[in-house]
Amino acid sequence: MNLWYTENHSPNVRFSLEVEEHLYTGKSDFQKIDILQTSEFGRVLTLDGLVMCTEKDEFIYHEMITHVAMATNPTIKKVLVIGAGDGGTIRELSAYPTIEQIDMVEIDKMVVDVCREYLPQTASKLDDPRVNLYFEDGLKFVRKIENDYDLIIVDSTDPFGPGEGLFTKEFYGNCYKALKEDGILVNQHESPFYAEDALGMRKAHQKIVGFFPVCKVYQFHMPTYPSGHWLFGFASKKFDPIQDLDATAWNDLDLKTRYYNTDIHVGSFALPNYVKEQLKDVE
Amino acid sequence: MNLWYTENHSPNVRFSLEVEEHLYTGKSDFQKIDILQTSEFGRVLTLDGLVMCTEKDEFIYHEMITHVAMATNPTIKKVLVIGAGDGGTIRELSAYPTIEQIDMVEIDKMVVDVCREYLPQTASKLDDPRVNLYFEDGLKFVRKIENDYDLIIVDSTDPFGPGEGLFTKEFYGNCYKALKEDGILVNQHESPFYAEDALGMRKAHQKIVGFFPVCKVYQFHMPTYPSGHWLFGFASKKFDPIQDLDATAWNDLDLKTRYYNTDIHVGSFALPNYVKEQLKDVE
Repeated sequence: MNLWYTENHSPNVRFSLEVEEHLYTGKSDFQKIDILQTSEFGRVLTLDGLVMCTEKDEFIYHEMITHVAMATNPTIKKVLVIGAGDGGTIRELSAYPTIEQIDMVEIDKMVVDVCREYLPQTASKLDDPRVNLYFEDGLKFVRKIENDYDLIIVDSTDPFGPGEGLFTKEFYGNCYKALKEDGILVNQHESPFYAEDALGMRKAHQKIVGFFPVCKVYQFHMPTYPSGHWLFGFASKKFDPIQDLDATAWNDLDLKTRYYNTDIHVGSFALPNYVKEQLKDVE
Repeated sequence: MNLWYTENHSPNVRFSLEVEEHLYTGKSDFQKIDILQTSEFGRVLTLDGLVMCTEKDEFIYHEMITHVAMATNPTIKKVLVIGAGDGGTIRELSAYPTIEQIDMVEIDKMVVDVCREYLPQTASKLDDPRVNLYFEDGLKFVRKIENDYDLIIVDSTDPFGPGEGLFTKEFYGNCYKALKEDGILVNQHESPFYAEDALGMRKAHQKIVGFFPVCKVYQFHMPTYPSGHWLFGFASKKFDPIQDLDATAWNDLDLKTRYYNTDIHVGSFALPNYVKEQLKDVE
């Protein structure tokens, strides 16, 4: 038997992975959850039929969502992570001895349970004693917080389905309020290439620019995401990710990374003209 | 009817494009040539069933293969282009008034003829009076040249089939010889991600390092190529692409680019750790 998983990267473009075994399928209150054993990417988590995370390329996403902020402000102690059910972002954060507390708010407990069982590569550090797990709606969670976090990471799904609230003006405003006066917000920022993703990118940027004095976007190569060209947002009340990068301090930590380094930190903020133009249009 | 073009990006990964019309199919002495009208990427040129160039994303490839060298040495006057049958590299080069002569050596005349007819977007500048077209084997062409060119661009297919000779030690050695004492070689350098492409990347790097004192690799986002993470090599006898970048001179030219700018020029040389390690292994 020849089994293939296929995802539409745009209405007219498909991406397919050969599947060795369909390891898990389930339906939570929020979404359909599947784990596939693939030939090329190892185990793959899909939510509502879209690839979220694969064993082969998740390091790129999780290193880039974490280390850019941590290398910009090495004194970060208290972190809020929203989404991130696979645990990969927590794994990267847990490498920093300086971090004292990580609150993770994931709306769907079943995603975490499934990843603990099938994706130990990403979920391995969810039991770090500094981690507090809250199975709640991130949108509601941040409403009640004020001046509390050094860093908020929004590791969300796409701006439809359960992740929709994490792309609203209200949410970004509450993130601003929940951050300390030198706080940093990093968010999953979609992609500039295919039309639907680019619309998500522009809408997110337009909303975040309304709150944060520093508001930049950085890119990385993510082979399983549509077009392979993906973005994170870096917004902050004070820190500039290039000028305030403390490369020496970060390199002295001697963390083992496979994608991130302090050169790519700087390089990732250099965006193609067509991306800069789209962002400028909504500023 | 629902027509799809499918390409194997690895033995276990497929990439498919919805096709509106199969505009052209033919077989030259060297390869199978097809032009597809696709819904997402406009017209697409495939050679032996692999995407070479699409109307939607070719600007990324052609800008990045051209402007990095031109911005490093703005006095480049005489250029040799090997391969590049679609004409996109010539189009970018033709924007520089300082260039006096462009020799293009393409083994397969039928590729050029088909692109002139179906891809005017890339082939439009092949009639520039500074361009000399040679329908010959690039490998043989460079053998007879000595100390003649300021820049050689190897815009080749993959290291199998007609493009195989353009990945040999003999070829790179002859390129070195054909370049002036401050000459630059830019070459299509495959990708670090899937195993077969990464092998091509390492082999090419290993051979080029043997000839050129400056030997770097830079990356770009190419949505229709396997993994979307693609590389060019920058090798030279003298110029360093970062230290010698003349950003002011390039920006004063006021060329209209959609991907390239002098920030991404620098940023593109910042490679992920896993790529740097692969390259270092063969140096």
